[in-house]
Amino acid sequence: MAADSGEPGTLRPGGRTARVRAAVLQAAGDVLAEGGLAALDLADVARRAEVGRTTVYRRWGTPAGLVADLLADMAEQSLPRTETGTLLGDLEANARLVQRTLADPRQGPLFKAVLAAAAFDPRTAAALHRFYEIRVGEWAPCVEQAVERGELPPGTDAREVVRAVSAPLYYRLLTTGLPLDRASADRAARSAAAAARAGAFVTPES
Amino acid sequence: MAADSGEPGTLRPGGRTARVRAAVLQAAGDVLAEGGLAALDLADVARRAEVGRTTVYRRWGTPAGLVADLLADMAEQSLPRTETGTLLGDLEANARLVQRTLADPRQGPLFKAVLAAAAFDPRTAAALHRFYEIRVGEWAPCVEQAVERGELPPGTDAREVVRAVSAPLYYRLLTTGLPLDRASADRAARSAAAAARAGAFVTPES
Repeated sequence: MAADSGEPGTLRPGGRTARVRAAVLQAAGDVLAEGGLAALDLADVARRAEVGRTTVYRRWGTPAGLVADLLADMAEQSLPRTETGTLLGDLEANARLVQRTLADPRQGPLFKAVLAAAAFDPRTAAALHRFYEIRVGEWAPCVEQAVERGELPPGTDAREVVRAVSAPLYYRLLTTGLPLDRASADRAARSAAAAARAGAFVTPES
Repeated sequence: MAADSGEPGTLRPGGRTARVRAAVLQAAGDVLAEGGLAALDLADVARRAEVGRTTVYRRWGTPAGLVADLLADMAEQSLPRTETGTLLGDLEANARLVQRTLADPRQGPLFKAVLAAAAFDPRTAAALHRFYEIRVGEWAPCVEQAVERGELPPGTDAREVVRAVSAPLYYRLLTTGLPLDRASADRAARSAAAAARAGAFVTPES
């Protein structure tokens, strides 16, 4: 009966579970963006998310478990690719999305935090690899279509081209204090497209 | 008198200071490679380096101070660039050096650890940026010479080309579980060279 009453807090279990997860992952992301993995405490996350501690400990267990689920959620939330009709247009759309994400005051530190967390935790590393696998796979068809249109040589490794767009932006974020501006995004797209056209990503015959 | 006696432990102070620093930084690097920043404890480093605790605390103060000095030392120890006479040859030499370093069982985790440590510590980040500034500056003349030889268009941003060689290797290390093999190094060099030849790194007129 209570499930049908329409009162607040009486939504179906799936809905409540999903809302609890969303609140906990939002809080976990906030903490990671503010202070990195070292600051991630399950009791603090429960308090911020206004969720019972027991629920958080039972469901996520450890900070590493929470980071792994956050990465799974980020992969689910990942924006679909843009289709512009040209290789350069598609790669620019991708580069600008990565650039805006990494330059964002919450998202940039959050990505730094999960990359750092993955450095010495195999479970987090596996979740991180899975996140990038999904993201790269989402954008690979842009490159495959460019091969079909004759813009790129046959045998071009689509996933490597997509990685080549993101790589300079991550490298800039992690190893320099230089701004992650639109110009750096456009240069990343332009150089990946030029290298792909020149056949630099053609897989050698095996 | 003791300073001239030639007995072990009686070397000039400069020599002793340098040996102490070398031993401490070696131990700090070992600890970072094994367990990351979270594992870096000054007392443990002193024990491993067989150096007095007080010396380590007085000279380095904190784990962040130790990481900053380790990065300064890595910049000093950085190998000089190779000159092969062609752009592709030089970039390949650079890419293979980066690949061997990141694939090394001690150096790879050490680089992951310092990148992770820099994510939430401004002092470590500054030392890390300085390390990459020096390293990129060391290899930039390869690109400048290629411009002078007419291999690359005038106005090519030499430092961006050098960064483009390293970027895919770091991205591969951090975001995938794929092997950092010779093929990935050669692809990184080949694609940076192709993009540079196509003018992707020419700085727009300002």
